[in-house]
Amino acid sequence: MKTRLLTPGPTPLPEEVRLTLAMDMVHHRKEGFTALLGEIQQGLKWLFGTEQPVIPLTCSGTGAMTAAVGNLFKPGEQVLVIEGGKFGERWGEIAGTHGLDCAVMTVPWGKAVTVEHVETALKNYPDAKGILIQASETSTGVLHPIKELAAFTRERDLMLVVDGISAVGISPCPMDEWGIDCLLTGSQKGLMLPPGLAFIALSERAWKRVEEIKPRNFYFNLLGERAKIMVNNQTNFTPAINLLMGLSTCLDLFQERTMEEVFRTQWALTQMARAGAKALGLELLAKDHYTWGLTSIRLPAGVDGAVLLKACAERYGVVMAGGQGHLKGRIVRMGHMGHVDFADVMAGLYALAQGLKLTGGHSGSRDYLERAMEAFETSLADGPPADLC
Amino acid sequence: MKTRLLTPGPTPLPEEVRLTLAMDMVHHRKEGFTALLGEIQQGLKWLFGTEQPVIPLTCSGTGAMTAAVGNLFKPGEQVLVIEGGKFGERWGEIAGTHGLDCAVMTVPWGKAVTVEHVETALKNYPDAKGILIQASETSTGVLHPIKELAAFTRERDLMLVVDGISAVGISPCPMDEWGIDCLLTGSQKGLMLPPGLAFIALSERAWKRVEEIKPRNFYFNLLGERAKIMVNNQTNFTPAINLLMGLSTCLDLFQERTMEEVFRTQWALTQMARAGAKALGLELLAKDHYTWGLTSIRLPAGVDGAVLLKACAERYGVVMAGGQGHLKGRIVRMGHMGHVDFADVMAGLYALAQGLKLTGGHSGSRDYLERAMEAFETSLADGPPADLC
Repeated sequence: MKTRLLTPGPTPLPEEVRLTLAMDMVHHRKEGFTALLGEIQQGLKWLFGTEQPVIPLTCSGTGAMTAAVGNLFKPGEQVLVIEGGKFGERWGEIAGTHGLDCAVMTVPWGKAVTVEHVETALKNYPDAKGILIQASETSTGVLHPIKELAAFTRERDLMLVVDGISAVGISPCPMDEWGIDCLLTGSQKGLMLPPGLAFIALSERAWKRVEEIKPRNFYFNLLGERAKIMVNNQTNFTPAINLLMGLSTCLDLFQERTMEEVFRTQWALTQMARAGAKALGLELLAKDHYTWGLTSIRLPAGVDGAVLLKACAERYGVVMAGGQGHLKGRIVRMGHMGHVDFADVMAGLYALAQGLKLTGGHSGSRDYLERAMEAFETSLADGPPADLC
Repeated sequence: MKTRLLTPGPTPLPEEVRLTLAMDMVHHRKEGFTALLGEIQQGLKWLFGTEQPVIPLTCSGTGAMTAAVGNLFKPGEQVLVIEGGKFGERWGEIAGTHGLDCAVMTVPWGKAVTVEHVETALKNYPDAKGILIQASETSTGVLHPIKELAAFTRERDLMLVVDGISAVGISPCPMDEWGIDCLLTGSQKGLMLPPGLAFIALSERAWKRVEEIKPRNFYFNLLGERAKIMVNNQTNFTPAINLLMGLSTCLDLFQERTMEEVFRTQWALTQMARAGAKALGLELLAKDHYTWGLTSIRLPAGVDGAVLLKACAERYGVVMAGGQGHLKGRIVRMGHMGHVDFADVMAGLYALAQGLKLTGGHSGSRDYLERAMEAFETSLADGPPADLC
């Protein structure tokens, strides 16, 4: 059976990337590879929208989150954690492990935070040195208003630390233009690579903070990595060579397509998935502020999410994800990021519809696929709204 | 030009592994992948020679060294670091960053430590809780006597923490049989994979120590990883999926060949490289205790190592490594680990001989290749000495 991976990471890989991943090893301290790292550095800066170096780390996205907390804050310092899903919770766990004084602002899962709420919350935490947040909360499919939050924090002595794991390369998040202090991502979402690499960039004022703090980190030592990159396109430790070679291919693909087209397609696929789910009579978890790389769909009462997902995979080869935490079994998360097109999302919607019939006898409109495609075509023609870019 | 990677990691990849690395993504939380992780777990236990779980970490080998120090010791505790090369120095740096009281025992680069010296050194450090050492010091090609050291430490309240990065899968290091408390390795040496994965296993008494210490590590949380592996063949965070798929292929290759044959071949290639270098009139850096995956060869006075290595690469496609630290420019490190055969080492020796002529006019015997092959054939027939196994 042909398998379609519609999970919110890892994502299917383009053939060009897969072939690069299969290339034989080269040595990471020789000229050819440092030249490649130099080119990658230019591509990553372009992708992140920053003049600052973007540091590749050999780890999962969580490793880069750990690096952010461990380098930017001293034990005992206060941070505000925006917790509206599993990855918001993770920020709190990492900050706690690092000995930070962690003020948690919970947001209902499925809702985005607002600048006003953050401003109010900060009145109780005047000593907070930073805000830890997700651009896209992968566990709920919510897109937080990073542009607005950055406009708020950049006028204050507050580091805005953004987990962009399911946002970078999927929806706009131009770091310097918006004024983000720390942006990080992993390789297995928008970048269409296997997991195993993460990337992190800091603003000028964030680097100053790190220089002042002089953090004691050995593996996640950002000052050390920055020095290595800037002096001779190197990494502190042996990096994930074949993933970096794959990244180079991936950045070429992005540059050929242009980011504007990538974002436009992601937007259209999102509108398609949302329209299809609605036409099936389903409720969306994230109503107003939703990410462009996955769609979270509530399941009708009585439907067992695990059984439904199993049926989708076994009958139609469509692999989707369920809910996490208290949403386990209650939502389906359909990923449509990276190397995924309209036909993959059609397969996802069809499998979902059939899965519903099998598990709860639910029947939506018979033209949900046509309606989904209409939304796709219209959104592709119109492009995403300007206020989200 | 055909390139031959004769560096001490990364190493060339077998075709079977490369093809696996090119496979499309699967989801790491689904049944198929957890079954694969279960099989890998059995293979890793066999490779490490242990009944304990072997934890895969998404990081370079240095990440696993950090994990060992951060989980096994509390800040303020004393450890004895055996420093006979760059990676011994790295143990000291990691231990220092972690706030350990670091007693450093230096050994001349090129020499192995002895149990007697360690015993004497420990008289000055009666509070030491552990010894940090390399099985094979990749920067010098020295093999430390881990079997003898483990026989010493396992009778004492002393953790023997062994960096097996260029030893596991190359020369014998059976963890449980010898009584090693912590053994770790990386993916890019004997395992014939790209870098990006590391593996770490602890003895029963080492796990007890971790349970007592309750270390605060988020990304490198060994207790958390052990729980995930033992309960449902999972990892705490998204792992390097394609490298783990490649590992599965690699473990199959090892099991088909048997470890005895792998070690025998590594031994024979080592004897071949050493005999060839000697026949060229060159001095070996590690005279008595040498690793089975690389050979460190001193260059005659006046020869510029960087120029020689460049000539080997440009004229013959043979990529070797130079010295590190104070050995920079003064030695050649010829890797012969993993997917390398006699003809690759012949090419390495020929390139070295030609490089010497170009840089210093050195001329050895004209039958050095024949002598090298005689050593290879004899060693392959005889196998490694029993006291090293």
